[in-house]
Amino acid sequence: MDHVFETETYLEKIEQLIQTKQYAALRDLFLPMEPADIAALLEECGEETMPLLYRLLPKELAAEVFVELESDSQEMLINGFSNTELREVLDELYLDDAVDIVEEMPASVVIRILDKAAPDMRKSINEMLKYPEDSAGSIMNVEYLSLKADMTVEDAFKRIRRIGSDMETINILYVTDATRRLVGVLTVRDLLLAETEDLIGDLMDTNVVSVTTMTDKEDVAQAMSKYDFLAMPVVDQENRLLGIVTVDDAMDVMEEEATEDIEKMAAITPTDKPYLKTSAFETFKARIPWLLLLMVSATFTGLIITSFENSLAVVPVLTAYIPMLMDTGGNCGSQASVTVIRALSLDEVDFTDLLAVIWKEIRVAVLCGVVLAAANFAKMMLVDRMLLGNISLSPLIAGVVCMTLVCAVAVAKFVGCTLPLLAKKIGLDPAVMASPFITTIVDALSLLIYFQFAIHLLGI
Amino acid sequence: MDHVFETETYLEKIEQLIQTKQYAALRDLFLPMEPADIAALLEECGEETMPLLYRLLPKELAAEVFVELESDSQEMLINGFSNTELREVLDELYLDDAVDIVEEMPASVVIRILDKAAPDMRKSINEMLKYPEDSAGSIMNVEYLSLKADMTVEDAFKRIRRIGSDMETINILYVTDATRRLVGVLTVRDLLLAETEDLIGDLMDTNVVSVTTMTDKEDVAQAMSKYDFLAMPVVDQENRLLGIVTVDDAMDVMEEEATEDIEKMAAITPTDKPYLKTSAFETFKARIPWLLLLMVSATFTGLIITSFENSLAVVPVLTAYIPMLMDTGGNCGSQASVTVIRALSLDEVDFTDLLAVIWKEIRVAVLCGVVLAAANFAKMMLVDRMLLGNISLSPLIAGVVCMTLVCAVAVAKFVGCTLPLLAKKIGLDPAVMASPFITTIVDALSLLIYFQFAIHLLGI
Repeated sequence: MDHVFETETYLEKIEQLIQTKQYAALRDLFLPMEPADIAALLEECGEETMPLLYRLLPKELAAEVFVELESDSQEMLINGFSNTELREVLDELYLDDAVDIVEEMPASVVIRILDKAAPDMRKSINEMLKYPEDSAGSIMNVEYLSLKADMTVEDAFKRIRRIGSDMETINILYVTDATRRLVGVLTVRDLLLAETEDLIGDLMDTNVVSVTTMTDKEDVAQAMSKYDFLAMPVVDQENRLLGIVTVDDAMDVMEEEATEDIEKMAAITPTDKPYLKTSAFETFKARIPWLLLLMVSATFTGLIITSFENSLAVVPVLTAYIPMLMDTGGNCGSQASVTVIRALSLDEVDFTDLLAVIWKEIRVAVLCGVVLAAANFAKMMLVDRMLLGNISLSPLIAGVVCMTLVCAVAVAKFVGCTLPLLAKKIGLDPAVMASPFITTIVDALSLLIYFQFAIHLLGI
Repeated sequence: MDHVFETETYLEKIEQLIQTKQYAALRDLFLPMEPADIAALLEECGEETMPLLYRLLPKELAAEVFVELESDSQEMLINGFSNTELREVLDELYLDDAVDIVEEMPASVVIRILDKAAPDMRKSINEMLKYPEDSAGSIMNVEYLSLKADMTVEDAFKRIRRIGSDMETINILYVTDATRRLVGVLTVRDLLLAETEDLIGDLMDTNVVSVTTMTDKEDVAQAMSKYDFLAMPVVDQENRLLGIVTVDDAMDVMEEEATEDIEKMAAITPTDKPYLKTSAFETFKARIPWLLLLMVSATFTGLIITSFENSLAVVPVLTAYIPMLMDTGGNCGSQASVTVIRALSLDEVDFTDLLAVIWKEIRVAVLCGVVLAAANFAKMMLVDRMLLGNISLSPLIAGVVCMTLVCAVAVAKFVGCTLPLLAKKIGLDPAVMASPFITTIVDALSLLIYFQFAIHLLGI
């Protein structure tokens, strides 16, 4: 990407400047960069040089960089801060960023932060910490600019000039009444295009879409993406404006939620730390419960095979097709489940679409099953029997395998598309109902079908 | 969600109003709604009533709704439009939206659109259609507000008042020189907080992060999320400003790319249509190539089993553990691959981290392998042997299964974490290297290990 710099070259330069103690040059190197890039560089420099480099940054930039650092780096820096330094950083932070940081810190650090924060910030942090982790309340910003309906455009501009520099955004302006109830919304563009004596009440749009503090943050992000909003107002039960969620936070939520869904689909307990920042033990803890659970459930398939051991001994060639049947069933099931889970997250389907979804998947299953069975029959006859000379493989046996295949595909698509919808309906997370679970169920059912066909058609 | 209305109740009301021909009431019902919600309602109403309802909307709102409709509805409406109606819609559209629409239409409709569009829009559409599908050029908006460094704040406000209403955003303002080269950026807030006689050149930030028309749109969205940008400038090789990508488009890109990654991980060819809008045949086409490919590759495992048929005949109990070994290996492999693939998309790791990733996964594999093997040994001895009375299951056989398990987990984690990184390195899409492929490789390797252990330790 143009203008987006190369970390490696910068790291070398930084090391050189540190060794030659050219601190002014170091500072000048950082000044033109984006905070996110400076944070990434500091992370790369490691624990020893990070505090030194961090202290070179001017106060405001330092706070912006601080927000972008990983939580363990933040903790390390805070532990090294003097009380004055800590207070300076806190003064520069937006409240929602301060809350994010506090949420990740151990208790001892939290106490120190709350102790050093300005009284009103301390109060607000405490209030925001009460909102549930995934709620709009927990990610909203309480520093927003609100106007009154009886203000003129000129009054509004005065207010923006007076307090606008402390607000995260002034692009979207909310209008509240005397009891802080949300009554309208307008953009800074509306103000700029209006006459100075126009009334805010005449300019504002009174149809305001809002969410409550308890709305799931994923739904907030979805709604903002759907409506192309730069900010979403957060109100309480009485429609009083409490805060706003800005689009940059919504993007972070979308990214996190997609990662979470992907991890759950692969049977991993989601973590919010970047991959290389998680210790091997943490990764192990996130993965092992599901592996154990799935291993136990996979023993059902083992039991089924054991109980048909005698049939397999009569026609041993049947064993060779077990992996193919299980894999294909598993793949079909995860295709269906993953598609439905994603459609659920994007609000494209809900439980009322159950029949439409099943009807669609059944048609897809028939198409897939027939094509797969035909291909497989041809392959078994031409490759396995003729080319590899496996003469014990009769067309009847191939028929059993292919009929099982059609049924397994149908079962897989059906289970794959219904389980996520049912999970959602009863309030479980559909993503957990993804491939590995469905694979286990589909495996067991496919094997039962296989052995039933084998026993009845082959007479064993 | 608060204030986000229920589609069902509205649909009933609409039907009632249509039957009683209360068109004015219908129009008043729509007026306060968000365009995205009106579009969703029109989609639900079906092909017959959609044109009627659409024509009730005032011109500007109609265009906003049009943009939010599915492409088949857009096509249907365009086919019913008179030339005047089509021209009216086109006049109200932002250029990037017009291009999005044109990209989805069949040739005959495209010709009609280009014919009716204003000459400068036609020219711009033609230019933008030349950019590759996934490039920044294809999603950028060429209607942006640019300023000159020698303007005063007052000049800038005049310019915003004159042309700002036709621009998609005025929140971020770019400064160009006489040759249209991008030299600075400032926000509308900077303007509002400045004095009227201040010079733009003094207020602007000259460190502008930009992308080129050829930058991958996913990278653009990632960068905007990382830097918390509301807009990203798009320049050509000579740093001349050509357009901007706005944050709402970046959010759409992020959503699409996450869906694509998820689909690829589940071995589905990505489509950009919503689930229920895709026909069964289209879904079939997106899924069958992978199923066939994976079925063929699954036959390798079948071949391995066939070639060890004699060993299985000697110790038939070995067969019962094949599904468990294969499933656990597959699950471990997809856990590792999915984690690495997601870390790759989020730019958390790259190929230079290969050794760090492998080292981490090996440690995780050892932890997981030992725990799984211990649990499995206990289960085999206590449940399978004692509880189910399967006395042919000796501790040695259980040992073979558990040793295989440890090796299979290690192989799975290793293959799962390296394949996506290698794929990325050689320019392939890492997401395609996800679970199903890795499962096939891991299955084959696990079986080979299993039979080697069995032959050498059990002496068969």
